[in-house]
Amino acid sequence: MTKNADPFAADRDQLGSALFTPRSVALVGASADPSKLASRPQRVLRKHGFTGTIIPINPARTEINGDRAYPSLASVPEKIDHAFIMVPSAAVPGVIDDCVEAGVKVATIFTAGFAELGEAGRRVQDAMVEKAHQGGVRLIGPNCLGVVNVSGHTVLSANAVLESETLHSGHLSLVSQSGSMMGAIVSRAQTRGLGFSKLVSVGNECDVGVGEIVDCMVDDPATRCIMLFLETFRDAPRLGLAARRAYALGKPVIAFKLGRSAVGRQIATTHTGAIVGADDVANAFFKDNGIIRVETFEALYETAQLVNGFKPPKGKRVSVLTGTGGAAAMVVDRLGLTGIEVVGPTPKIMADLALQNIQVSDAPLIDMPMGRGEGKVYSTIINALMDSEHCDAVVAVQGSTATQNPESVRQRMLAATLGAKPLAIFLAPQADTALRILQDSNVAAFRTPEACADAVRAYCEWQVPTDHPGIDPQVLQSLNTTLQSIVGVPMHEQAAASALSVLGIPFAPSQVIASGAESVALQFPVVAKILSADIPHKTEVGGVVLNIVDAIELRTTVDAMLARITQSNPQAHIEGVLVQSMARGIAEVIVGYRRDPDVGPVVMVGVGGVMAELGGGHAVRLAPLTLAEAHKMIEEVPGFALLRGYRNQPSGDLTALAQVIHQMSLLACVETCVVTEAEINPLLVKSDGVLAVDALLVTAALNKETI
Amino acid sequence: MTKNADPFAADRDQLGSALFTPRSVALVGASADPSKLASRPQRVLRKHGFTGTIIPINPARTEINGDRAYPSLASVPEKIDHAFIMVPSAAVPGVIDDCVEAGVKVATIFTAGFAELGEAGRRVQDAMVEKAHQGGVRLIGPNCLGVVNVSGHTVLSANAVLESETLHSGHLSLVSQSGSMMGAIVSRAQTRGLGFSKLVSVGNECDVGVGEIVDCMVDDPATRCIMLFLETFRDAPRLGLAARRAYALGKPVIAFKLGRSAVGRQIATTHTGAIVGADDVANAFFKDNGIIRVETFEALYETAQLVNGFKPPKGKRVSVLTGTGGAAAMVVDRLGLTGIEVVGPTPKIMADLALQNIQVSDAPLIDMPMGRGEGKVYSTIINALMDSEHCDAVVAVQGSTATQNPESVRQRMLAATLGAKPLAIFLAPQADTALRILQDSNVAAFRTPEACADAVRAYCEWQVPTDHPGIDPQVLQSLNTTLQSIVGVPMHEQAAASALSVLGIPFAPSQVIASGAESVALQFPVVAKILSADIPHKTEVGGVVLNIVDAIELRTTVDAMLARITQSNPQAHIEGVLVQSMARGIAEVIVGYRRDPDVGPVVMVGVGGVMAELGGGHAVRLAPLTLAEAHKMIEEVPGFALLRGYRNQPSGDLTALAQVIHQMSLLACVETCVVTEAEINPLLVKSDGVLAVDALLVTAALNKETI
Repeated sequence: MTKNADPFAADRDQLGSALFTPRSVALVGASADPSKLASRPQRVLRKHGFTGTIIPINPARTEINGDRAYPSLASVPEKIDHAFIMVPSAAVPGVIDDCVEAGVKVATIFTAGFAELGEAGRRVQDAMVEKAHQGGVRLIGPNCLGVVNVSGHTVLSANAVLESETLHSGHLSLVSQSGSMMGAIVSRAQTRGLGFSKLVSVGNECDVGVGEIVDCMVDDPATRCIMLFLETFRDAPRLGLAARRAYALGKPVIAFKLGRSAVGRQIATTHTGAIVGADDVANAFFKDNGIIRVETFEALYETAQLVNGFKPPKGKRVSVLTGTGGAAAMVVDRLGLTGIEVVGPTPKIMADLALQNIQVSDAPLIDMPMGRGEGKVYSTIINALMDSEHCDAVVAVQGSTATQNPESVRQRMLAATLGAKPLAIFLAPQADTALRILQDSNVAAFRTPEACADAVRAYCEWQVPTDHPGIDPQVLQSLNTTLQSIVGVPMHEQAAASALSVLGIPFAPSQVIASGAESVALQFPVVAKILSADIPHKTEVGGVVLNIVDAIELRTTVDAMLARITQSNPQAHIEGVLVQSMARGIAEVIVGYRRDPDVGPVVMVGVGGVMAELGGGHAVRLAPLTLAEAHKMIEEVPGFALLRGYRNQPSGDLTALAQVIHQMSLLACVETCVVTEAEINPLLVKSDGVLAVDALLVTAALNKETI
Repeated sequence: MTKNADPFAADRDQLGSALFTPRSVALVGASADPSKLASRPQRVLRKHGFTGTIIPINPARTEINGDRAYPSLASVPEKIDHAFIMVPSAAVPGVIDDCVEAGVKVATIFTAGFAELGEAGRRVQDAMVEKAHQGGVRLIGPNCLGVVNVSGHTVLSANAVLESETLHSGHLSLVSQSGSMMGAIVSRAQTRGLGFSKLVSVGNECDVGVGEIVDCMVDDPATRCIMLFLETFRDAPRLGLAARRAYALGKPVIAFKLGRSAVGRQIATTHTGAIVGADDVANAFFKDNGIIRVETFEALYETAQLVNGFKPPKGKRVSVLTGTGGAAAMVVDRLGLTGIEVVGPTPKIMADLALQNIQVSDAPLIDMPMGRGEGKVYSTIINALMDSEHCDAVVAVQGSTATQNPESVRQRMLAATLGAKPLAIFLAPQADTALRILQDSNVAAFRTPEACADAVRAYCEWQVPTDHPGIDPQVLQSLNTTLQSIVGVPMHEQAAASALSVLGIPFAPSQVIASGAESVALQFPVVAKILSADIPHKTEVGGVVLNIVDAIELRTTVDAMLARITQSNPQAHIEGVLVQSMARGIAEVIVGYRRDPDVGPVVMVGVGGVMAELGGGHAVRLAPLTLAEAHKMIEEVPGFALLRGYRNQPSGDLTALAQVIHQMSLLACVETCVVTEAEINPLLVKSDGVLAVDALLVTAALNKETI
């Protein structure tokens, strides 16, 4: 995307300056009493050397701690770039009106008590945002801890950590949905020698969200790596675009996101997924947009140094060198559990090292006690691994030397070919000095084997942002027309199948009959299914009969079914009975599509039919997707072992399956309505082709809330 | 187990004294050159205040650093309790002979270069052990870093960490299969204020293994908690007994074991499991013997304080209180992923707190910002959770206060009802002082959300050592007789089925015929299977034909099969064709038994037939087991959803399935041979009863190597 084509560029420049480099800051609700929280931002601004104008707003004072105070924003004679609002929640909407009047560019609302408290709070918040939009004021928060520009000496926050800590300037920037975690991350990272450029606590994200902030950070020359501490998604599409821009500029985005477990989702967001768990969707979103996701807390800041300056790897192959077997085994074991390949040295490396009188085996772990050669041997091996194409990252583990002689750790690393590929150092003992020394030498160092393995895994799973395909214009037109005619209409199986057929998905031959008296031109055995948009769960009302062997049996079965269901479900409008030839595949598969409330259109594939309950796994991607990506999804599902040709059995037609996944994903392109949900379950995968035997489709009218 | 009934008590007392409280120590191969590794143990002994006699053995010196030196063990006039051997590997066997001559009680072999190098090294090692056994010398190592008694001022080691660190006396003891990890754990734990009683690096465990050392530690009055860093099992049965004794005396045993992944197993042990992954067996072993297993490194030492003084919990319910939502959510999310239930407060707790003017909701996370009530509110809520029966452990999370005001953290904790149940504190920011203060106050504190959640999970999954049932004497006699007659004989399906029938396992009706001309008295349809102990994979030679509908088809099928296989497998001895009535169950299950090389007899149950490939999971236990335990296994298998009554389908006869698991587990009781492996796959589970349709049984003669 070129700068010219970037629709957000101008807005972003304006927001970024008011956010991070305001020349004047109004502290609305500032207190002169140092024991009050509302007195802190003024002290914090001064402590960190803010050189602009500080304007306390307090009707009871004309001066606070040396700054001229004003009774209201309206009474301030000069222009205000940024207002930091600390008044009680009931007074906030009035202050926003004042901001509009005064032409404030950005208002950061520290005050809590809005959407996070429920529906009433949300209404107040929404009204406030509406007015701010009309008046051209951008809002951060509410319920947030503030905005920090470390190198710009602008620390606009009520956070206790930011009052006490000395902030170190550096190349990391952080966006956090949790205010308190901003302080926790800063205190931990700074202890390790990491410095920051920009920090933003976004709170409720009523207006400016994570995505837009990231987009501003991408433009910050001092920012080389962007870290995200996320609890939910509120502006996923914008975040996706910002992350892709960061990727293009070589600035890695690293995310830690809560909500991996059900209880985690319960407390972090209100949304819970159906078959596609919400966290799989989050993962799909991150991968799709080239975001690196870590799963351990310390890895959030420890990974920055590891990936800085690198692109996604070709493979997932890691070489490990250690001076202490047990410690390295902890890292290797974790890597193995996450599917990363731990590779021993190649014959060439072994031969090259042998020429230098260093003997190593081809075992996955190169165990080289430190005593030998005072570290020179160790550095030589690291260089051999760094220079070789056989691995994508190198892990080096150090034992007691890291405590006994921290300086030697630096020497060894400085002798290494840094920059060829990511190098992660895990230090087994307590070795705070060595950790700091390594960071100061721009080497990624890790405190725990878990964070080390997690960071290396996260790097190995990092992907180039995914390309999404377009749709054939003719197919799109048919889809638009077909779906437009049935928007919002409850659909029975046959209607859904008919609509999905437009995409080219093959359905099993079927025929609808109104009574047993009608004959069918289908091959027996057949299945008979009640056809009614009012009966979504056919099996539960006895609306499915399998394995009907001939016309006589069909007749009695259909009449009995109609009689039974007419009686049990008198309100249901019954369209007839769908009769379908019985078919068998090598395996039954589910292909699903839905518009996820967090990230938008997604497509999934997994083990279908009753076997879905066996836990064979599934794969999820953002839609639409290419055929190649659909093939990758199929590879990810462990339960598809049967399809891949199990024990001399015939294998399934994976090309045809990939085609259906691709076709379903094109529902994201429909322009005349919103496809809320679509599902084929089961799709029979045969050795030659696939056959859909049941379908579901839910549509809704377009509205402005649609992602 | 009473002291009188303990067969190891006397040996243990003798070993324990020579190991940990020797009055005299010979340093065989001691060097006078301080730059040599072999000079270190003498310095380390002195540094830590050893008050016994130090006897350097060095043929070239009569004195080393103030101690009288001797040319050989034989020339030492006084009695030697413990010899520490540092001579080159080739000289070690000779020194062991000297130890025998000199009546040394324990020899710790620091020297490496034995079984860890391969078969030749193993032979030398075995011969050495044989001589030591005959001569009454117990051996530690080889390839180990030594033995430490902190309070007894006996530090017998060549470890650099132990030379530099001041050792703090405390109540933790550690056995490590990795020498370097002993130092790493000590340095980390001591930084946190934890102190040690005994430390042993066991190396190759050629004689004294982890189990026997743990057994000695159980007798140590100063040891309250035993930590294990394990790479493999070499004396699992003894470790099991020792852990049970530790459990009975209220001394928790906490284990970190490598080999969770395949590559981890590759580097940690040579053993890899078949369907039952070796790590599941390790887990089963730990649970069986009341050992607490942690999965993160820091949790190994952080868990000690958490579980100290407690017994296994009734449930897996955890309450979480926090001053910072994001940080607590990290812990809760992890707990949720591992199946721990995070429970909100009960109505009673909410009412009681409301009386004290504290309002909390019933959400899983109690979020109570710290500002309110200066921590008193926080302590009051903790006490309410600690005193309630609705949860089994409490997690409390603290944010910036932990850094800003570490002392307040102590005050809050001292106001809490400690001792009612485990209380884990996670500190979100960098807060080294607060971590130390909490440890000094005997409160379990955690540095990372991952270790905190792991420790709490490990506590929640801790189980009372499992009771193993006996076997009915009549059944045992029949089994003994039946299996004795077929020891080591390759067995075809029918022979295996017949042997397993002795246990009461129901097999599908079948009949063996020699040719198609013979008729069968079985209900059609039937299956025909080639019967030959020489053809283990029947399907691959066309030796299985399903769904034969009548006698005519059976005749032609059987004759064709016999002709085909006689030609394709001319060497195979064919017993005939097994004809079996076709049967269908609600699900197909595999029940397996094997004598695991690590831990002995185990039984497993999982999804059977081709569905096993879908990854429906399985459960493993040490055998024999009770019916109640078999039921617990069934509950653990996610893939048994179909058996538990899926979507109005009939549920399977789980009682009959549990019975078969129990019956298979009784193979562990056989006295006349070793059952190496047994398997029923599939076992058809019907709504009423079960039916085994295929069986496998491998036996071997008894030998002294048998666990």
